[in-house]
Amino acid sequence: MKLQNDLILRAAKGESIERYPVWLMRQAGRILPEYRAVRSKLSGFKELVETPEFAAEVTIQPVDILGVDAAIIFSDILVVPEAMGLEYQMLEAKGPWFEKTIRSEESLKFAETNFDIEDRLGYVLEAIRITNKELGGRVPLIGFAGAPWTIFCYMVEGHGSKTFSESRKLLYTNPVLAHELLGRITDVTIKYLKAQANAGAHMLQLFDSWAGILGTVQYAEFGLKYIDKIVNAINEVPITIFSKGAISSVEKIAKLNCNTVGLDWNMDIAKIREQIGETRTLQGNLDPCALYASHNEVENSTIEMLNSFKSKRHIVNLGHGVYPDIDPEKVKTFIKTVKDYEIK
Amino acid sequence: MKLQNDLILRAAKGESIERYPVWLMRQAGRILPEYRAVRSKLSGFKELVETPEFAAEVTIQPVDILGVDAAIIFSDILVVPEAMGLEYQMLEAKGPWFEKTIRSEESLKFAETNFDIEDRLGYVLEAIRITNKELGGRVPLIGFAGAPWTIFCYMVEGHGSKTFSESRKLLYTNPVLAHELLGRITDVTIKYLKAQANAGAHMLQLFDSWAGILGTVQYAEFGLKYIDKIVNAINEVPITIFSKGAISSVEKIAKLNCNTVGLDWNMDIAKIREQIGETRTLQGNLDPCALYASHNEVENSTIEMLNSFKSKRHIVNLGHGVYPDIDPEKVKTFIKTVKDYEIK
Repeated sequence: MKLQNDLILRAAKGESIERYPVWLMRQAGRILPEYRAVRSKLSGFKELVETPEFAAEVTIQPVDILGVDAAIIFSDILVVPEAMGLEYQMLEAKGPWFEKTIRSEESLKFAETNFDIEDRLGYVLEAIRITNKELGGRVPLIGFAGAPWTIFCYMVEGHGSKTFSESRKLLYTNPVLAHELLGRITDVTIKYLKAQANAGAHMLQLFDSWAGILGTVQYAEFGLKYIDKIVNAINEVPITIFSKGAISSVEKIAKLNCNTVGLDWNMDIAKIREQIGETRTLQGNLDPCALYASHNEVENSTIEMLNSFKSKRHIVNLGHGVYPDIDPEKVKTFIKTVKDYEIK
Repeated sequence: MKLQNDLILRAAKGESIERYPVWLMRQAGRILPEYRAVRSKLSGFKELVETPEFAAEVTIQPVDILGVDAAIIFSDILVVPEAMGLEYQMLEAKGPWFEKTIRSEESLKFAETNFDIEDRLGYVLEAIRITNKELGGRVPLIGFAGAPWTIFCYMVEGHGSKTFSESRKLLYTNPVLAHELLGRITDVTIKYLKAQANAGAHMLQLFDSWAGILGTVQYAEFGLKYIDKIVNAINEVPITIFSKGAISSVEKIAKLNCNTVGLDWNMDIAKIREQIGETRTLQGNLDPCALYASHNEVENSTIEMLNSFKSKRHIVNLGHGVYPDIDPEKVKTFIKTVKDYEIK
């Protein structure tokens, strides 16, 4: 199906664009009353993730309501460890919770790789197919996965953490096991992302949410090494790497075989553009808290960010997922400001 | 009282040292069975903080047991907001919890500044006096406080958080109120740190645990501006600034009127030394997780860090507080390795 708006794909490839494309991480879900209406009919977050019709519905909502230039499939990075053999629950106040964890060779049996993606993750692929059908080519659809290091963190720790010290401990006490697990996650992730592209995802993003808890040397060994394998294996569609908190590794990331580098709100776009030149598209990075301010101030801080771009190779986004209590009207102001902005 | 070991003070001032001094953040408490024995006799963490005899006892334990080159007074950064009018509880699994928070002009009445430090925080000063008496000059004693931004985070949020989005929200929605509160915290912190120095602290450290959640522009305005006021007001003893996660602001921090800049384990010591030259002492920064490895590997990673020092202006520490489940014997290996290392 021909896309009526392929702005974000052109921006990712460094082609000519008439204005900057814009979307928001976590745009599907959280802030929209229309999302909460769907969610309230279901038993919980996981039922929504696992029911393709509903997942497609909430994926499309921000396209209709907010006017973003891309949809991102409603799902969770933790569907991958679950498919590998570690079931998780999403607890209301606590977040993700795994009954079992991987901290020994013995427990590697819960990190399977030899399974059919359609078989265990077919619900995501089906959601992608339904979404594209219902979108009818209005905007591209982004697929995604967690980067191996971040998935590893959850598989070893079993839940969220400020320090992920159990996960980092394993890097010191059993690096062989750590590399084995990271390799397995990588293999599955490659198959999963390829399946998403084949199902119709026009673009892919790797989320490395916990990149920032490793020093640069360890992040190169246990993080970027595996991201490198993934981006080299994906030739189907453009791919974005978003390593949150990895300020000291941005130059290295920009040298990997990706189209776009995602930046969090602590990263200085102008400085990074200077470091990497025109080789990659940058995505980001307004502070999500900036949307708490008045409409006028949202407009001002968005324009300030846009003025700092010294290149056309940009996709506009926040520097983190939109926060749950942000007023959708503020998001509209953010998006309108980007759309009205004339590229110099 | 004359100090028998003033190594850390000389290192802080950039004077000649015969070997690198070493201590650990969170060395008092957490890892030592001797600490847990004292703790188990009391109703909880706060009773320990508020009882000078016990606080002094656990402050001295790591000097006797681990052989560190400095003691740091056992206390908590949250004694300051409590003294200002916001009582907190320390909940076993949840961490700190404030009944009231400051998010409006009205609630500023819980942020008092006009009180006597001895009156409300005399228990810390008394703990300092007792500790010094019992230490008998064996090693210097470090006093500390939270930096205004970090204390602000707790006073606004009311508890720990991954994003501190309520606290960051206030910077956008009511910067005037934010500056008023930060100014008040700063005033109290200056008085408190001076009182600690007068009570006998030989050195002071500011902990800015949540520095890393602000971009550089906001951190300059809401973080460093107030740290600058504090370090300019403190002339009594050497002072250290530890802004965790603020990689992009390290050069700015090194220009402030401090003696030592604390580095977390994600910061590249050699690179920062290049940036700042010999102007400041650097403190840190072994990854606390490195202590999970074997004794042999602890020794190796410690030596690797020491080899990366290109100057004598260093105080050795971890890049974060020692984790609770670290074997004290590993800490001893870390300390012994530093003490045996010959400065080139």
